[in-house]
Amino acid sequence: MPAVSNRSVDALVQGVLQGEVRSIARAITLVESRAPERLELLAQLFPHTGRAFKLGITGAPGAGKSTMTYQLIPRLKAKGYRVGVLAVDPTSPFSGGAILGDRIRFDDALEGVYIRSLASRGSIGGLSRGVPSAVRVLEAAGFDLVLIETVGAGQLQVDVRFVADTVVLTLVPEAGDVIQAMKAGIIEIADIYVINKADREGATRMRLDLRNALELGGKPKGWNPPITLTEALHGKGVDELVEFIEEHKQYQQQSSGWHTRRLQQLEWELQSLIHDALEQQARSITRQLFSAATLEAVLQGAENPFPKLKAWMGS
Amino acid sequence: MPAVSNRSVDALVQGVLQGEVRSIARAITLVESRAPERLELLAQLFPHTGRAFKLGITGAPGAGKSTMTYQLIPRLKAKGYRVGVLAVDPTSPFSGGAILGDRIRFDDALEGVYIRSLASRGSIGGLSRGVPSAVRVLEAAGFDLVLIETVGAGQLQVDVRFVADTVVLTLVPEAGDVIQAMKAGIIEIADIYVINKADREGATRMRLDLRNALELGGKPKGWNPPITLTEALHGKGVDELVEFIEEHKQYQQQSSGWHTRRLQQLEWELQSLIHDALEQQARSITRQLFSAATLEAVLQGAENPFPKLKAWMGS
Repeated sequence: MPAVSNRSVDALVQGVLQGEVRSIARAITLVESRAPERLELLAQLFPHTGRAFKLGITGAPGAGKSTMTYQLIPRLKAKGYRVGVLAVDPTSPFSGGAILGDRIRFDDALEGVYIRSLASRGSIGGLSRGVPSAVRVLEAAGFDLVLIETVGAGQLQVDVRFVADTVVLTLVPEAGDVIQAMKAGIIEIADIYVINKADREGATRMRLDLRNALELGGKPKGWNPPITLTEALHGKGVDELVEFIEEHKQYQQQSSGWHTRRLQQLEWELQSLIHDALEQQARSITRQLFSAATLEAVLQGAENPFPKLKAWMGS
Repeated sequence: MPAVSNRSVDALVQGVLQGEVRSIARAITLVESRAPERLELLAQLFPHTGRAFKLGITGAPGAGKSTMTYQLIPRLKAKGYRVGVLAVDPTSPFSGGAILGDRIRFDDALEGVYIRSLASRGSIGGLSRGVPSAVRVLEAAGFDLVLIETVGAGQLQVDVRFVADTVVLTLVPEAGDVIQAMKAGIIEIADIYVINKADREGATRMRLDLRNALELGGKPKGWNPPITLTEALHGKGVDELVEFIEEHKQYQQQSSGWHTRRLQQLEWELQSLIHDALEQQARSITRQLFSAATLEAVLQGAENPFPKLKAWMGS
């Protein structure tokens, strides 16, 4: 990312507010970077942000998240939403430029939809640190529903809760999937459960197991997360899923849950930005404490690095 | 983790050096924690560390990593290694106390093998920050081969390179797996490729695709990573895999690659510890910069948080 002057930040802000696709793309690249100007951009966009509904779609690789996303988009558009998509999944077809270009770009269903993949490298919780910032860019550009597709990998996906207002967990009816999800601690985080590829054997059984698992966990009173069966590939059950999503959104907005959750999201967003800055410091502190010669000596066993670290941490 | 006195650190060190299982377990719990005493423990263990061969087994969930680990253990023991296993995979059977207790503990194949699961929550690169420290504990306890099983989830698994001397990537012959691995940027990091479940359709084809993909990537001269077919469940092809592992180990030790890699590992280890300390700061800095009342104001849109962040980062 080349340096961005304050003047070009102003121009970028104007472009984003006017919904220009190229400005949106450049602004997201900027907020994903560590360039100091990203904070100026965020400061200027801030008054136009905070209003979109954020929908998280998560689940293990192969559970059909992207197909589901693709089926949800036209239905959400039909509800009147302007939809933006952030794919934080290296295996998502939405992430691959080529596949996107080949198969999807000219599709009517995606007309007016902004789709962007974000890197998950170096991220915590499997979720790119840039997500909340990218959401703000999309909000400022007028999108009022941001769909966040995240790679599901055990405990790594848990942080989607700190970004999305409604989390949909996609499972497939295969032996052990409920158990794996439980072990990975993701059972508790979803607001809506989808058993996709429901034509496969074991779907009904899985719904039962999942319901039992959820009741074991002692879900908080209030929202009782639905478990719905879909065949995303053929669009089956997706209308029902959209209704559950709308229902959960309304339920939350009418309860105190909305405010608590948004406060958590905000705190996580700010903490991530601070964390990110500290991460850069870690690199330079390491170099300060341990020169190339010292590292060499440590490798030979001639120098013990831990007393030095201990002293630094104690200070 | 209760506070640990310097005196009990001394006792712990003695226990670890004598190879006592309970001391090893307590020491790993200590180094996984953020207790300041962990650095004293590491400082005292340091002279007895740095000598084990570290073998990483990675791959997507369902690729058969745990089965492979289970098959490798007796063969590595037969080669004369004292084997310790660190499982950084929430879905690994080695991670679940119950399954471990039920199925594996009394197995002859695992006699004398120390197996421990590490949390991957909150980790970067899918790899627990505690791994290099846990490796040091095992080294001090006399294990000279540490097998590290890591959950593979796209780009998240890349950091295994910074911990292991030899990385084995396990794939399964299913459509798209090579492409997914390429997109996730993991193709470049492995030293040995295993196509497991090779009795399934497409295994030979996958080997061809993978070979092509590797040549496209322009592998550095020197080690030419082998691609081997296995059926871990029946032990087929595992002997050959062990030979490749030994070969790669010897190849590296005779080339300059070993030294470069060990230097990278050391740097990553120290940087992780520093990063970890800074991460704890992130939380308190966030609270200092943004009081509950400020967060509330930001949520209402009455206060813009980004100028404050910008000022903090600029300072």
